[in-house]
Amino acid sequence: MFSVTVRDHIMVAHSLRGDVFGPAQQLHGATYVVDASFRRRDLDDDGVVVDIGRAAEELQSVLAGLNYRNLDEERAFAGMNTTTEALAQMIADRLAERVHEGALGETARELDGLTVTLHESHVAWASYERAL
Amino acid sequence: MFSVTVRDHIMVAHSLRGDVFGPAQQLHGATYVVDASFRRRDLDDDGVVVDIGRAAEELQSVLAGLNYRNLDEERAFAGMNTTTEALAQMIADRLAERVHEGALGETARELDGLTVTLHESHVAWASYERAL
Amino acid sequence: MFSVTVRDHIMVAHSLRGDVFGPAQQLHGATYVVDASFRRRDLDDDGVVVDIGRAAEELQSVLAGLNYRNLDEERAFAGMNTTTEALAQMIADRLAERVHEGALGETARELDGLTVTLHESHVAWASYERAL
Amino acid sequence: MFSVTVRDHIMVAHSLRGDVFGPAQQLHGATYVVDASFRRRDLDDDGVVVDIGRAAEELQSVLAGLNYRNLDEERAFAGMNTTTEALAQMIADRLAERVHEGALGETARELDGLTVTLHESHVAWASYERAL
Amino acid sequence: MFSVTVRDHIMVAHSLRGDVFGPAQQLHGATYVVDASFRRRDLDDDGVVVDIGRAAEELQSVLAGLNYRNLDEERAFAGMNTTTEALAQMIADRLAERVHEGALGETARELDGLTVTLHESHVAWASYERAL
Amino acid sequence: MFSVTVRDHIMVAHSLRGDVFGPAQQLHGATYVVDASFRRRDLDDDGVVVDIGRAAEELQSVLAGLNYRNLDEERAFAGMNTTTEALAQMIADRLAERVHEGALGETARELDGLTVTLHESHVAWASYERAL
Repeated sequence: MFSVTVRDHIMVAHSLRGDVFGPAQQLHGATYVVDASFRRRDLDDDGVVVDIGRAAEELQSVLAGLNYRNLDEERAFAGMNTTTEALAQMIADRLAERVHEGALGETARELDGLTVTLHESHVAWASYERAL
Repeated sequence: MFSVTVRDHIMVAHSLRGDVFGPAQQLHGATYVVDASFRRRDLDDDGVVVDIGRAAEELQSVLAGLNYRNLDEERAFAGMNTTTEALAQMIADRLAERVHEGALGETARELDGLTVTLHESHVAWASYERAL
Repeated sequence: MFSVTVRDHIMVAHSLRGDVFGPAQQLHGATYVVDASFRRRDLDDDGVVVDIGRAAEELQSVLAGLNYRNLDEERAFAGMNTTTEALAQMIADRLAERVHEGALGETARELDGLTVTLHESHVAWASYERAL
Repeated sequence: MFSVTVRDHIMVAHSLRGDVFGPAQQLHGATYVVDASFRRRDLDDDGVVVDIGRAAEELQSVLAGLNYRNLDEERAFAGMNTTTEALAQMIADRLAERVHEGALGETARELDGLTVTLHESHVAWASYERAL
Repeated sequence: MFSVTVRDHIMVAHSLRGDVFGPAQQLHGATYVVDASFRRRDLDDDGVVVDIGRAAEELQSVLAGLNYRNLDEERAFAGMNTTTEALAQMIADRLAERVHEGALGETARELDGLTVTLHESHVAWASYERAL
Repeated sequence: MFSVTVRDHIMVAHSLRGDVFGPAQQLHGATYVVDASFRRRDLDDDGVVVDIGRAAEELQSVLAGLNYRNLDEERAFAGMNTTTEALAQMIADRLAERVHEGALGETARELDGLTVTLHESHVAWASYERAL
């Protein structure tokens, strides 16, 4: 199994609902360093998992929809907790849509899976892994 | 599949028995930077894999039992080699016990698995992965 | 010249005023990974620059006053831009006060200087360096 | 499941064929920071996955065959694209041969698998994972 | 004293002349992860050392002139050794020109100095520091 | 001013004397990731600060005298506290001797200074800087 990973980041504000979150129930923020990993069993005819340039562009494009925002005011997140885990899933699902639409190239339709990891600090991170 | 990881560290002395260990048969030491990853298929009602604050506390508490020690003199390790791999397993097993006891919260009992990685330097690390 | 550095982090929301900031004029957020470096020409009688445990505690204590906040609503920042540079200066100045009050120990009064670095992502950071 | 990882690096020149590679079709180069991970279900009698010293030596030895070279002129790569993914596979396959020959020790023959990751920058890396 | 640093990277081929370089006399390559640090005594009216967006753009623009090249064939390097140190100096000097031309903004003309660091691997890097 | 840095590491046991050290008064250990930085105003005729290969070899050789040891039993440290700061100084001084003896090459005698940094964990490090 092969994989290729590209890294980018976003800087957002948000608050979390639920006693479990303690002081993170207040409006605060985070830099999420985001790693998107694409997996496939065999390489394509160019010898790659995915066109890494397009992968980086599509990741940046997905993140642009979140970057420099207060997630508490984004309609896409209404009624949900924007935990690191939930954001990883949302970013992975949006990347999966782009893969299916062909935005990462025709051969990217053969990708087997996708993992998105969000690093919220040097001591904590969360991942979401899914099939394609 | 989702995961959440927290990082902490310990500073211990020890020696290893067996020709394979060369100069590491002498009493020496290590800083282990420890990553504990918790996995589950679906998020709980708060939208998390585990209460990350409790996860960090329980990891710190497990590590406190090892930190600033000479492992050669710890009864828990009598008759065994405290290799990086073996320490990863012991830390993972102790965390698993805490999960089962409910120390990481009620919903943490639904966790699917756990991986502990010990970084012994910038060029070497070891992991142990288990089900919960 | 000797130095000792300890690392911690904060997660805050804020917005910046001025066209130069582009989209960062919107309410957004950041994880700042904070490195506080203490400098002195000669070691104290214990052979250290500063008691590293107390240094870490005082850094954490200074950061606790900022962590999980929306800096736009903090009185301490009224009328100023909470840029990474300005936050580095504020944290350094608060640490300097603690050094002068003796909170880092008596011998820490002999420290020569202090640098605070705030990493806002894997590709950008800012520092403020001052005498003590 | 246990794993042990060792890190080393190579510095090579190469060019890539295919429109998908854009400016990387020109002769350029890369530092690849290489992580080789060895996996096995149970530890051997010494309590390790593999003799980490021998693992590091064999990785270095495999990399020595590539280091400081222009890969476009290496016979081993004739007719193929030396993408990061393809290099990860080649390095993994060469390490696998050494495992099978006993170069990593007798008990290393019981290894279950191997993953090689090549970091081409701070924002991009690729992996190849295989059974042993 | 304040500083702001931005990070980017290039991937180049080159060879070095002189027995001291051993196997690096052959055509090989490197990824250089490049950190450009800008220093000034006092912040400007926006509370920054430099517009970090423009700093990142100008660094990328300077690096674009080197990226995906074989430095042995670049006229700018004719007759010189493209060591990591020499490349750091060239990049710093080109950034300094841009600062002086006003490309980083009017207030950037008040910058006091500049340091460029090139990381050639996880175990080696070089810096060049100059006044502005 | 130019600098070149090489990284290596040691794994040692030790204990520290003095109430300030708390639990670190017990026999414990550390991995020190060691960065040695060499500085000079102008490059030599080969365009380098120092032959990086020899710098790495001499650092490794100095560290070999400490690696896999219990520092409490080393005569060189009798009567002193082997704090991270003190070890940084000792390593820097031993490297300085080698520079003066010509072990890093003739032109290395023109080096202006040397800084040694010891990372004891992902959240703490210490440096010693000296002239040559």
